Amino acid sequence: MLHPVQAHIISIGTELTAGLTVDTNAAWLAKRLAAVGFVVDRHVTVSDNQPAISDVIISAAAHADIVLITGGLGPTADDLTREALAGAAERPLVLHRPSFDQLSAYFQKIERAMPDTNRRQAYMPEGADVIDNARGTAPGIRLQIGSTTVFALPGVPSEMRAMFRETVEPELRGRSAGSVIVTGTLRCFGMGEARLGEMIEDLMTPGCGPLVGVTAADAIISVHVTARGANSLEASAAADDTLAVLRDRLGSLIFAEKNETLQQAVATLLIERKNTVATAESCTGGLLAKKLTDVPGSSAYFLGGFVTYADEAKTSQLGISPEAIAQHGAVSEEVAALLAEACRSRLNADFGLATTGIAGPTGGSAEKPVGLVYIAVATKTETVTRRLLTNAELGRDVIRQRSCNAILNLLRRHLISDVSQRV
Amino acid sequence: MLHPVQAHIISIGTELTAGLTVDTNAAWLAKRLAAVGFVVDRHVTVSDNQPAISDVIISAAAHADIVLITGGLGPTADDLTREALAGAAERPLVLHRPSFDQLSAYFQKIERAMPDTNRRQAYMPEGADVIDNARGTAPGIRLQIGSTTVFALPGVPSEMRAMFRETVEPELRGRSAGSVIVTGTLRCFGMGEARLGEMIEDLMTPGCGPLVGVTAADAIISVHVTARGANSLEASAAADDTLAVLRDRLGSLIFAEKNETLQQAVATLLIERKNTVATAESCTGGLLAKKLTDVPGSSAYFLGGFVTYADEAKTSQLGISPEAIAQHGAVSEEVAALLAEACRSRLNADFGLATTGIAGPTGGSAEKPVGLVYIAVATKTETVTRRLLTNAELGRDVIRQRSCNAILNLLRRHLISDVSQRV
Repeated sequence: MLHPVQAHIISIGTELTAGLTVDTNAAWLAKRLAAVGFVVDRHVTVSDNQPAISDVIISAAAHADIVLITGGLGPTADDLTREALAGAAERPLVLHRPSFDQLSAYFQKIERAMPDTNRRQAYMPEGADVIDNARGTAPGIRLQIGSTTVFALPGVPSEMRAMFRETVEPELRGRSAGSVIVTGTLRCFGMGEARLGEMIEDLMTPGCGPLVGVTAADAIISVHVTARGANSLEASAAADDTLAVLRDRLGSLIFAEKNETLQQAVATLLIERKNTVATAESCTGGLLAKKLTDVPGSSAYFLGGFVTYADEAKTSQLGISPEAIAQHGAVSEEVAALLAEACRSRLNADFGLATTGIAGPTGGSAEKPVGLVYIAVATKTETVTRRLLTNAELGRDVIRQRSCNAILNLLRRHLISDVSQRV
Repeated sequence: MLHPVQAHIISIGTELTAGLTVDTNAAWLAKRLAAVGFVVDRHVTVSDNQPAISDVIISAAAHADIVLITGGLGPTADDLTREALAGAAERPLVLHRPSFDQLSAYFQKIERAMPDTNRRQAYMPEGADVIDNARGTAPGIRLQIGSTTVFALPGVPSEMRAMFRETVEPELRGRSAGSVIVTGTLRCFGMGEARLGEMIEDLMTPGCGPLVGVTAADAIISVHVTARGANSLEASAAADDTLAVLRDRLGSLIFAEKNETLQQAVATLLIERKNTVATAESCTGGLLAKKLTDVPGSSAYFLGGFVTYADEAKTSQLGISPEAIAQHGAVSEEVAALLAEACRSRLNADFGLATTGIAGPTGGSAEKPVGLVYIAVATKTETVTRRLLTNAELGRDVIRQRSCNAILNLLRRHLISDVSQRV
C-alpha cells in the first residue's frame, strides 16, 4: 500500500462564502489531482479577509503535502492572496521585475494603459517562483512553506485550468512518483440506497482495497470506486477488480457506467435495436418526452408524445373512453395501460410509454394519495404496468422526476431482457 | 456598524472532496443565512473520515456562533456525521426512540421493510435535539458545543432545504437580534445581461446604499438588492427605496419578484383571466409542457400538449400538411404558426403555443444553424411568431431552456398588454 500524497484546496472570495457564486474550481482540481496521485481530503473556502486567509494557509500547510489556492490574485483591493501568503510564510512582499515587465507588455498588447492597481500583481512573497499566466493579468505563485508546496492560481476558471494543466500538473506528475488514482462509477436504479448499501457493505468498509462510496439523487444510486496504484495500469487493475465484484453483485440494477444518464442508457439500447417510442403523459406533464429528447440524435427513436393532462385531453387526443376514466379513475392501472397502448398505435411505435398519477401537493385522497403514480409500457403484443408510491413530502418535482426514471428503467429492463433472454 | 453573527458551513462527503459532485448546498445556505443576519466567512469540505470530521467540527465551534453541517447522515457505512459529532462534543451516541419509531413508520408508509442499516440513523449524540425530516429517512441534529449551536442537516438538497426552512431558519431569525439583512430580487426577461446592467449601472456602484447585483441563467436576469439595518423595518425601508427605482427603470422586463419562475408568473396571469393553453413542441421535446405543469394547480389552465418531434408526427398528430413542411421546412415561421394554431383548435384552448428549431449539436446548416428556433403563440383571431437565435456553443440544454422561456415571456407580454391595454 502506497502512502497517499495529501492535498488541500483553498478557495478564496467573499462571493463564494456568501453563496453568490458556486465554486466549481475545487471539484475540477480534485479530479485532476486524483488523476496524478494526490488525494484531496479537505477543501476550505474563506472570505476576502487577510488574517483569515493566512490562518487557513498555515493550517493547510501543516496537514497536507501540497496546497492549491484559487482566487484573490486580481488587481482590486479585495484581492489579498499575495499578502496572506507572505504572512503565512513570514516573508516580505518584493517587486518581481519580470512579472512587472510582463504586465506592461500585456496592457500594450491590448492597447490600454496599465491601471495602478495592476502593479500590485507584480509583488510576490520573497523566494516565491512565479507561474506565467498566458490568459490574463494575474501571475500564479509557487511557494515552499516547510515541507509543503503551495500553489496559488487565479480564480477565473479558464485561467486557473490552463495554469494547472501547463505548469502545476507536469510538476506534480513527476512528484507523485508512481502513485496514481483511478475512479469508476456504476449508476444503478431499482433499489433504495440503504438496501443497495447492504449488498456491498463489506466493500464499503475502509481497508486496504479501493474505496467504495454511494450517493443518491432522484432514486438513482451512484456507486463510486477509487483505487490507487504505482502507475495507471496498477490503479486501473485494482479498480477493475472491485468494479467486477460490484457488477456481479448489482447485476441489472446497473444502467450505466461513468456519468451517463438513464435516458442516455435507454437511447443507446433503442438505437442498437432500431426501436422507436411514443409517450402519453398525465402527471409528468411532458417531462418524460423532455428526458427522451435530452439526448442528441433522439429523432432516431423518439417519434412523438401526447401530454394528456386534463381528462378531456385523454379522450380528445388519444380516444380514451370517458367510461373507462369514470370506471377506474384517471389515476389507475387500467388508464395507464390504455394511454400507453393508444400513443403506441397512433404513432406506430414499437413502445408506448404512459404515466398517470398524483404529483400533488393537492388532489390526493386516502385511497389514491399524493405520490401514487401508475406507469405502463406497451408493445404490439403486451402491456406491463407498475404502481409507484413516492413519499408525498418529497414534493411535486421529485415525484415527477422519479416517475420518469422508473418508466425509463422499466423500458430498459424490458430491452435488456429481450436481448439476452434474462428476466 | 452592527456586529455580524458568524456562521461556518461544513460539507461532508468523499464524493465532494474528490470532486465527483459539485457542492451546491453551501452556496444556498450562505444566501439564506445572510437573509437572517448571519455572515458565513468560512466553509470547509471534508471527506468521510471520522477523526477529520470531528477535528473540523471542533475548529468551527471554536470560531463561529453557529455551525451548519450538511451530509453524512444517511444509512450507509460511510455516513459518519453522527459519530463525528458525538466525538467532537465528547458525548456517547444513544438510541433516540421517537426517531426509531418515525423511521419504522416511514418504511411502513412506503410499504417496505426497514433495512438494518437504517437503524443507525436513530442514534444521536446524548443531549442532542432531533430535527424531523418529513422528506426522507435522515433526521437532523441540533447540538450545543460550548456557546456554539451546531445543526447537522442531510446532504440531499431537497431534504436539507426543507429542514432549514422549516426548523433552522425560524430559530435563527429569533437569534440574529439587531443586525438584519433584507434582500429583494427582481426577475427580468427580454434583454441581455450587459445591456440591462448598463440601465442600472449607477445603482450597482458600491457605496453606502443597498448593494445591487445581477446574475443570469437561461436568459433570465435576476437583479438582487441587499440592504442592512438595525431591524427588519429599517433594512426593508432601505431595500424598498432601491427596489422602487429599479421597478421604474426596468418596467415590464420584470416578470416576478423574489424567486418566482416565469411559468409561475404566467400561471398566475392565466388563472386570473381564466384562460387555457395547449402546446405543440418540436425541438423543445416536452420541456414547455413540463414547465407549464411545474406549477401546482396547472390543470386550471393547461389542457394538453403534443410533442411532434418527427415530421410524420406533425402530420399524424396535428394534421400539418406534408406539403407545408416540404415547402417551408419543419424549422420555419410558417410551420411554427401552423403548429400553434392546430394544437389550439384541437384542444379548444384560448392560446396555442408552438416551438420548432434546431437544438443541435448536429442538424444545422448555413441557412438554418444550430440555435435557430421559431416560436408561435396563436389565439382564435391572431398568431404571433418570433425568430430566436441562440449561440450554438451554449449547447442543446440551454437552447431548449431559453426557447421555452422566450415563448412563456411572449405569452406573458400578450396577457399583460391585453389586460392593461399597454403594448
